[in-house]
Amino acid sequence: MLLRSPALATDLYELTMAAAYFANHVTGNATFELFVRELPRNRNYLIAAGLEQALDYLHALRFSAEDIDYLKRHPVFRSVPAEFFDFLQDLRFTGEVWAIAEGTPVFQNEPLLRVTAPIIEAQIVETFLLATINFQTMIASKASRVVSAAAGRDVIEFGSRRAHGTEAAMYAARAAYVAGCAGTSNVEAGLRFAVPTSGTIAHSWVMSFDDELAAFRNYMQVFPYAATLLIDTYDTVAAARKIVATGLRPQAVRLDSGDLGELSRAVRQVLDEGGLQATRIFASGDLDEWRIAVLVAAGAPIDAFGVGTRLTTSFDEPVVGGVYKLVELESEHVARGKVKTSPGKATFPGRKQVWRRSGASGTYVADVIAAADEPVLTDSEPLLSCVMRGGTRVQPAPPLAEVRERCRVLVSKLPAALTKLEAGVAYPVHFSDRLKAEQQKLVGAKSDR
Amino acid sequence: MLLRSPALATDLYELTMAAAYFANHVTGNATFELFVRELPRNRNYLIAAGLEQALDYLHALRFSAEDIDYLKRHPVFRSVPAEFFDFLQDLRFTGEVWAIAEGTPVFQNEPLLRVTAPIIEAQIVETFLLATINFQTMIASKASRVVSAAAGRDVIEFGSRRAHGTEAAMYAARAAYVAGCAGTSNVEAGLRFAVPTSGTIAHSWVMSFDDELAAFRNYMQVFPYAATLLIDTYDTVAAARKIVATGLRPQAVRLDSGDLGELSRAVRQVLDEGGLQATRIFASGDLDEWRIAVLVAAGAPIDAFGVGTRLTTSFDEPVVGGVYKLVELESEHVARGKVKTSPGKATFPGRKQVWRRSGASGTYVADVIAAADEPVLTDSEPLLSCVMRGGTRVQPAPPLAEVRERCRVLVSKLPAALTKLEAGVAYPVHFSDRLKAEQQKLVGAKSDR
Repeated sequence: MLLRSPALATDLYELTMAAAYFANHVTGNATFELFVRELPRNRNYLIAAGLEQALDYLHALRFSAEDIDYLKRHPVFRSVPAEFFDFLQDLRFTGEVWAIAEGTPVFQNEPLLRVTAPIIEAQIVETFLLATINFQTMIASKASRVVSAAAGRDVIEFGSRRAHGTEAAMYAARAAYVAGCAGTSNVEAGLRFAVPTSGTIAHSWVMSFDDELAAFRNYMQVFPYAATLLIDTYDTVAAARKIVATGLRPQAVRLDSGDLGELSRAVRQVLDEGGLQATRIFASGDLDEWRIAVLVAAGAPIDAFGVGTRLTTSFDEPVVGGVYKLVELESEHVARGKVKTSPGKATFPGRKQVWRRSGASGTYVADVIAAADEPVLTDSEPLLSCVMRGGTRVQPAPPLAEVRERCRVLVSKLPAALTKLEAGVAYPVHFSDRLKAEQQKLVGAKSDR
Repeated sequence: MLLRSPALATDLYELTMAAAYFANHVTGNATFELFVRELPRNRNYLIAAGLEQALDYLHALRFSAEDIDYLKRHPVFRSVPAEFFDFLQDLRFTGEVWAIAEGTPVFQNEPLLRVTAPIIEAQIVETFLLATINFQTMIASKASRVVSAAAGRDVIEFGSRRAHGTEAAMYAARAAYVAGCAGTSNVEAGLRFAVPTSGTIAHSWVMSFDDELAAFRNYMQVFPYAATLLIDTYDTVAAARKIVATGLRPQAVRLDSGDLGELSRAVRQVLDEGGLQATRIFASGDLDEWRIAVLVAAGAPIDAFGVGTRLTTSFDEPVVGGVYKLVELESEHVARGKVKTSPGKATFPGRKQVWRRSGASGTYVADVIAAADEPVLTDSEPLLSCVMRGGTRVQPAPPLAEVRERCRVLVSKLPAALTKLEAGVAYPVHFSDRLKAEQQKLVGAKSDR
């Protein structure tokens, strides 16, 4: 499933630190946690995504001869003994991973992933894990809003051409599907992840025939049951009239420019009067959750939305700033909590679990981030579970359609204010008293020095 | 050089249209041009980038048995005859490509790429070409601003963890280097494209030892000549004092939080008074061109900037909206210009060339977009040249360091107002009289129908 050899898909400092850990015989198990310090603006919750790609990577991690040769020739490594490169050659990920399942709504400070492994292994995977989880979580979170706004109408992701490259396009399609999109235009996501793929036609198809009607007819001859005709190349309503007049019965028509609310009404009327009640209207063109909400509220007769650029780049908030922080380090077989005290970036020590409490109606009420070994919180369910042990997956990846359905159910349990587009009341996330006390103890010890 | 098999890295409609062209025996040569209709906000110019990956793709394009099997099983293709899949199996890109060289400043409406090939070949490559050129052009354009703001100080790209996945991270590093960054933290970009790579240390390194000084010493033991010590884990100025007191002589120290202007002054003073005049100060932490400009204007003693998130995602403008439009189609061996007349999205017909005129000082004055066969414009140079013929590169890819140097020279020829961070006077780009007349003729003909 892994698409390219990614041992060097990392920041150089991960590898220089690895060399320095190696030379200093720092070999104990370290635990890192991946979490987002603050929700992005315009996001009341995030949808965790990208875990399967993270696990694929960990499972397959190895340095090729080419990789090692590159590092050996790198000037920064000139003072590093050859044994380090022998060590890299044999390096595999042998650690344990706990994670929150893909498709789960998550909040600030909640570890989405917890990695425990010999410190070199746990360190060098930082960049890949962050890039993968940050990106897919960002897209899933944006898609969840778009899907909410569409209020039951299908949303098709089709922003591949504006994605940050073609790999980003494929994974954006995957993450958007997890969060509830009905499908994507990205064929690679169809092949690799069984995301349903669909498409319409482009202006170039229409323009490549002498008249628009010939273009429509010629397409429908090949795709009689599955044609969505793009009708805005010259004049949208006139094109709808031509379709009716000629007796074509396309599955759908697509509007891609102009006032979509007004045009959808005019086109719906033309189609209905022409007996094409079954022909659906598909709308696209710089859409996002806000514009869709306006169209839906105005009762525009649009059956499905194609959302590209603004979904596939998470245009209004193109970053989820997840971090990956050392929280525990074993030294002489004793695990000790670790904290950082930089202003605004302080961390909490030790391995953690996230507990989510539901109210009587099943709606989520609050989360508590506790030490992993604190007693079970009543009325709450733990969100992190063990997904990899000894470098091997505990379970095979679930089918993506199942992940999507689970996401749908979990999002429906969020307090209603959170699934509105506007910034709502923040969902309550607390640290347990024990974590707070342990942080204070370590912070105090640091400032004494 | 190509990292994964990307024939299916495309939108489904490219392939359904291909099937429909095939069934309708539309086989003539088509010409598509890739251009950006409007510059993004906050960009006075773009830097073309990504061409080499586009050519790699075109050269390697082929459908695998797995790809074809997926398409055959796809419900939308159930009405498509088997001959189409045989055709796909043998399909190679055999066309001609003209392009503006990577690293060239470009403006609205200027074709960065012009593809002429049998229409199916020219059509199905749309998505890959757009995703690739849009993305790298976006990053190079952002990086050019950041490099300008740094006014001669080194800028290191190190936003991999916030990139839209790990492939995006690698290509962002490449594009940032083209536009003048001194290097990247992304090791894969070093291996694949010889982008210089460098790094510092992370907070986790500092935290993994009992005290900060031990962390510094242990790192410098392994990297005596190439250590950049991160000094903000606990207290930035105190850490600088410890370094001086202990006689460590790191190549550089890195500040990553707090008031970078104030801290850099305090740290510089500590270092200088301690005889560490040669130790450079490297600053990072949510930087972009605006923040760097403020630090530079205030005379902060910072020698190099590490720029991550906001560069690697082009945070303020995470999309370059390039489009790929049919401009000419050969039918019965006669090439005919094509236009689209959708409101706000009208195009100009036929193959084009971009001419750039320089003033006496060598500074660029204006561009003219003309038909490719219009006579040479005096005092102007043509920007598009033939880079692929018959599906084969005309020349091997130039070394990236050369592309970067060329970019530096060309950016220095831009009118000064354009390289300021603020929105300047728009650079003049005109269509030739002949193109305007031909567009009017075709638009008139369309509205008659």
